[in-house]
Formats: sequence, structure tokens, C-alpha cells
Amino acid sequence: MKSSSFKIKLTRVEEKLQQLGQIGALPGGGVSRLALTDEDKAARDLLLHWMEQLKLDIRIDELGNMFGIRPGKTAGPPVMVGSHLDSVGTGGLFDGSLGVVAGLEIMEVLNEHNILTNQPFAIANFTNEEGVRFTPDMMGSHGFSKPEILQDLLNAPAVDGSGATVKSELQRIGYAGQTPCGSLSIDTFIELHIEQGPVLETEGIQIGAVEMVQGIYWTEYIFQGVSNHAGTTPIQMRKDAGLVAAQVAAFVRQLANMMGANQVGTVGLIELHPNLINVMAEQARVIIDLRNTDGISLAQAQVSLDKKVKELAKAEDVKLRKNELVRFPPVQFDAKLVSQIANTAQQLGYSVKQMPSGAGHDAQMMASLCPTAMIFVPSVDGISHNIKEFTKAEDMERGCQLLFNVVLDLIS
Amino acid sequence: MKSSSFKIKLTRVEEKLQQLGQIGALPGGGVSRLALTDEDKAARDLLLHWMEQLKLDIRIDELGNMFGIRPGKTAGPPVMVGSHLDSVGTGGLFDGSLGVVAGLEIMEVLNEHNILTNQPFAIANFTNEEGVRFTPDMMGSHGFSKPEILQDLLNAPAVDGSGATVKSELQRIGYAGQTPCGSLSIDTFIELHIEQGPVLETEGIQIGAVEMVQGIYWTEYIFQGVSNHAGTTPIQMRKDAGLVAAQVAAFVRQLANMMGANQVGTVGLIELHPNLINVMAEQARVIIDLRNTDGISLAQAQVSLDKKVKELAKAEDVKLRKNELVRFPPVQFDAKLVSQIANTAQQLGYSVKQMPSGAGHDAQMMASLCPTAMIFVPSVDGISHNIKEFTKAEDMERGCQLLFNVVLDLIS
Repeated sequence: MKSSSFKIKLTRVEEKLQQLGQIGALPGGGVSRLALTDEDKAARDLLLHWMEQLKLDIRIDELGNMFGIRPGKTAGPPVMVGSHLDSVGTGGLFDGSLGVVAGLEIMEVLNEHNILTNQPFAIANFTNEEGVRFTPDMMGSHGFSKPEILQDLLNAPAVDGSGATVKSELQRIGYAGQTPCGSLSIDTFIELHIEQGPVLETEGIQIGAVEMVQGIYWTEYIFQGVSNHAGTTPIQMRKDAGLVAAQVAAFVRQLANMMGANQVGTVGLIELHPNLINVMAEQARVIIDLRNTDGISLAQAQVSLDKKVKELAKAEDVKLRKNELVRFPPVQFDAKLVSQIANTAQQLGYSVKQMPSGAGHDAQMMASLCPTAMIFVPSVDGISHNIKEFTKAEDMERGCQLLFNVVLDLIS
Repeated sequence: MKSSSFKIKLTRVEEKLQQLGQIGALPGGGVSRLALTDEDKAARDLLLHWMEQLKLDIRIDELGNMFGIRPGKTAGPPVMVGSHLDSVGTGGLFDGSLGVVAGLEIMEVLNEHNILTNQPFAIANFTNEEGVRFTPDMMGSHGFSKPEILQDLLNAPAVDGSGATVKSELQRIGYAGQTPCGSLSIDTFIELHIEQGPVLETEGIQIGAVEMVQGIYWTEYIFQGVSNHAGTTPIQMRKDAGLVAAQVAAFVRQLANMMGANQVGTVGLIELHPNLINVMAEQARVIIDLRNTDGISLAQAQVSLDKKVKELAKAEDVKLRKNELVRFPPVQFDAKLVSQIANTAQQLGYSVKQMPSGAGHDAQMMASLCPTAMIFVPSVDGISHNIKEFTKAEDMERGCQLLFNVVLDLIS
């Protein structure tokens, strides 16, 4: 079967994204659709309705992951595409949703042309990818790929302290499914996603064939000093926790610059207490986000950071506590599948670049189960997790068409 | 008259401080007695009662500054001592109150021994020294020394946004007085105060003869960058407002170190927005507190800071707004009076050091009107603006006795 003879319909994709965008819509655009809220339930209900219309074999697992399977000639494991429908508190219409809607569109085209494929094809909506209301993020795909942690994930409490758990909220919204987590074998997994960064746009490239996900380390440092008067305390007598926090944040950039292009480092969170103009901070808290495509370099960056943090704390005589919040090593995607994506893009006449993903995605969890890769389409101004998040219609169209062609080549 | 033959009574001083400390008392010690609140009124009422018992000529001016005058043989301007009874939100029992209570104790001793002095002697309680509920700080003494700004001060709104003004609150608590602001001529002003810093304690010295108040500059910088994803945004494309804030805070310490002992610099306040782990800050706000005993050096420090802030903002391509919040030049006290204080301390057998004040005080406003100086007594661990603020009984006793002897020499 020649995949290039079938065209996806952009208008259907846009319409579904708009319908989803009305669920949890924010004034000024964007959505708030935190995992396992009423809004998440409404989006799931809509997806279920679409899956039913497409006559898919629907499965909902114990973590609320939703699957819709279209049978093939053979009964083997399906090729799967998908992503997530939950959002951050001020999210856009594309993050996650595009990957799910693209899967629905592939189903539409297959049904439209009555294509009987060799292998089954499936779409997925994974629970709580964002990790805002319940941690950790990528929860559904994590549990799917590692069923032995299922109970821990089900017992995760809401970060708002309401006492709700993943389990109680799944039950409340009616998505605590029967399918055992991880019981579904998958042949191949591909996730179409917006880039959420500026690289494709800046370089004028239409498609990213994502070959890996950067490793991510999050480390919290809490410094305990002594609050004293800014006017009456000589410099050499100070134990200024805020100063150390600032020095650490400044060092993180130096470290990234020293280590070069594959190392990034960010301090987005700095909190001082009491945070008054004329009082040295008694306590300061920073969380450092380090990422690298190379696992060994990332671990080395963390060692350098820990060493510098200790030196700075010692120099100011402030006490130091350290909490390792996240330690995700880099994940390599399947080289053959990445090449297939890049080659198919070129055949379609799209400009394409093999690139890493800076953000975490469900696909990185799936990579431990089966050949996996991702397709990126450009984000305008690189903006995401923001109501201004936007991806142009022609970019979405290219992404969906490429996903369709790659999938059809796999399942034909 | 030989002042050394009269002794102040520590027990009376301690008792009055304890009585004041019950007004606005906090659990665990300390007081909350914000200016022009019901607690401030209660403290003022108690002071009024004490002044009446001492048969003083009581004056309350338009800004609520309270004066109690003891006549002398001549009718000229009085020698005045005093400080303030208002506190910060979590204040101690000594900041301000000690200077007022010491004045009352001098009155007690003069009355006890029926001493008719040559000059009149007065005590003062200045309105809103702390500047917490209404800005600026040192409000009462500022208006007293500069009556042309009276209306602006009376119209100052409460920072809590309640709509109350200094004027409306003075009227509400019954301390909008009749005496025109600044109509009282003063011969000499001396303020006894706790040091609020660690220098005297660390050096094992009993008395500070305060020769000046450091100049104080407060400058707010607001950096406007672009929020972007910590994983997907290459370092060279970042406009990280939080990074610049951290670099500025780290530089302030470098600047103080470069300029040496008389220059201090503090960043007690850093605020990032949105302050999330994996998002570069779109906006960051810092307020820089620079102080120096030398006005020219202080101005130079500010120039160096401004230059560096511009460089750092430009390097990261973030926008910069600057607000000059406070520009107090250093205030020199009267050299002869400072020497008299130091000499009298030595005659009493107290160890003494001439030193600057790192904090602002009412005395710095009075210095524009008449010969002025201050006496410092040690603060345990240098702690102030804190319920743990403490000054030992023997240190208070030395401070009060020294103040008595200096005053008696002046008014005899």
C-alpha cells in the first residue's frame, strides 16, 4: 500500500483541537485541564465518544490510561500513537492534545478508505503527563511501562493537600479501569508533539525527528543562615542564606557555559525568608534544573554543582540541606524508527532535523517497552505551558501527515 | 552640680519596659505595636500617665509627637532625650522604648532630689519611627525637623490599603495634637538606643558613642525577560530575568568586599515570577540596600552597581526598570557632644567606642536642628526587629546612667 496516496484532513484535526480547547477554557485563550479534575473527565468523555464513533476496541487500565485499538489482519501487538489530554494550570491547546487528535485523524482516514492493515493500530491517552496536580509527571506511561510501581502511583496524594489520591480521583471521575496496567503489548510507539522550544522555528525547519530525550536532574538546596539587620551587621559577620542562593543560581549558568551546548541549567525558583529589604535572609531555597543529552556529562555537571554549592555555603557559614527531586537519565529512541521518520519526512518534501527533546514526554517511558520515537512540529516563539502556545495549521498538517505515512508503512 | 553623685534606678527602668512590653505582647515574647494602632494608643496613654505623674509640661504636636518638659531656671530651649514607642510587627521590648523610658528615669531622679536645673529638660516620643504601617520611617522626627512636609506626611496612606491615613489614625486614637510641628526649639538632642548589631558585643565594649548614621540607598530593579521551558530553550536564546537578579545579588557582595569595611550591601528581597522549577523567570525583582559612612563612597558604590546591573541585563537581553526608593546621605552628629559622651563614659568606668550607626534613627532627623548624638548599648547576638531582641540589665543601667550624667552636665 502506498501511504502517500492518502491525505489527512487538517480541518478535522483543527475542529477536534478546538472542541478539546473549550474544556477548561481560560479567558484570553488556553486551557486549565489538570489531571483527574472534572475538566479532565470531560475531555476523556469526549475522547471516548470519538473512539466509539470510530468503532475502536476501547480499553481503560487501572491508572486510567485510555486506549482505542483498530484491529488488523493479524492479532499481534499494535503500533501505537498517542500522548495526553491533561494540561498545566495555564496551558495551551496543542501540548499533548495534538498527539491524541493526530491518532484519531489516522483512524478517520483508515476508516474512510476502508483500509484493512496487516497489524493492529492503537491510540493512547496517558494519565497525568504534566504532573502538576499529582507527582511525578508522565505518571500514566510510567505505570504502563513499569506495573510494579502501580500501587505507589495510585496512592500519590494531590499536591493541593486536599487528601485526594490518584486512586480516589480516578474512581470519582469514573476512569479507574479494569485492564491490568502493562497487560497490553505494543509493537512500536510514536508520539507527535509540539516542540515547546524555539529550535525548529529559529532554524526554519518543519519537522523534528526526535532521537532522544535529555536526562533531567532536579535538585533542591535549602540554605539556613541567620537573619540580621542590613545596616548594623558587618559583612564578615554575616550568614546570608539569600546570598548563597543567588551565588548558586549565577553559578548554574557558568556551569552550562563551561560545559557547552548539550548542557543546560536553569534556576526558575528562588525563595527567600523573610524576604525583606533590610534583613539578610535566614532561609533560602533554590531548585536547580540540569539537563544534558549525555548521561555521563549530566552526572558530572551535578557533581560540579554539588561541590560549588558546598563551597559557597561554607564560605558564608550557612547550613545546607539537599534533596534529589528528579534523576531521569537520558533516553535514546530507536535509531531505525528515527531514520524512518526522517526519510519519510524528506519523501514528503518536508525539511527535517534529527534532534533531542529538552522536555520529558510519555514516549520516554514507552521506550523501555518497544521501538519508540517522536515527531516534533514547531512552536511559535518556542512558547509552551502558556496560553500563548501556538503551532501553525500548516505545521500541524505536516506533522499529522508524516505520522500517518510512517504508521501506515509500519502496519501495512 | 556633680552628676556622679546621683544614681538612676534600674528597677524603675525595667518595670516601665515590662509594662510597655505588655502592650501588644506576642506569644513567646516581644511586641507588635505598629504606629497609630490601638496598641500604640495604649502605649501613648501610659506614657501620658507617667508624664503627668512627673508633673511635666505636656505637648502633643500635629504629627502626634509627644513631649514632656521639665522647666529650668531659665526659659530657653530644653535639652531633649527620647526615641519612639512604636515597633515593627515582631519587635522586641527595647528598640525605641529604652530611649523614652531612660528619659522618664532621668525625670524621676531630678524630681526625687528636687534638682532645679538651669536649663529646661524634655523627653520625646516620636511618631512612627519604624515606618512599617505608614512610610517613610522616622516620620515624626522628620516632620518635626522639616515642618514644610507636614501635610504630605499626614496624608500618607496605610500600606495595608485600608484607606486609613496618618491624619485619620491620629484623630481616631486621639493624638492629633495642637502644637504646631517644629514650633518647639531644642538646645541639644540625645537618643539612647540599643545597637541592633553585633559590634559592641563582639568587641566586648559597653558603650557606643555614636558619631554618625550611615548613608542608606535603597534601589529596586525590575527585570523583564521571557518565560521559557528549562529543557527546550538553548542557553544562547534565553532571556532569563531570574538569572540577572541572582547575578546582581551576587555582585552586591563583591562590591562590598571590593570597597572595604565601611561599605555594606544587602539583597534581602528577591522575587521571581512565575517562580517555577522548569520555567525561566519572566520577571524578577530585587531591592538593593547599600550603606556607607562616607557619602561620596556610597554614591560611587551606587554608580558601580548601576553600571554592573545594566551590563548584566544587556548580556541576557532583559529589560530593566530602576526605582530609587531611598536616598539618605550619611548624617554627622555633633563632634563635641560625641566627645562629651565618650569622656563621661570613661569617667564612669565604662569601656566606650566611637562608632557609626548602621540603622536609621530619629536622632538623624534632629541633627539638622541642634547638636545631636546617640548612645548605643549592646544587643545580645546583635539581634533586633525580632522577639528575641535582648539587652542585658547591666548594659541598660550603664546606658541610662551615662545619659543622665551627660544631660545633667548640659542642663546644670
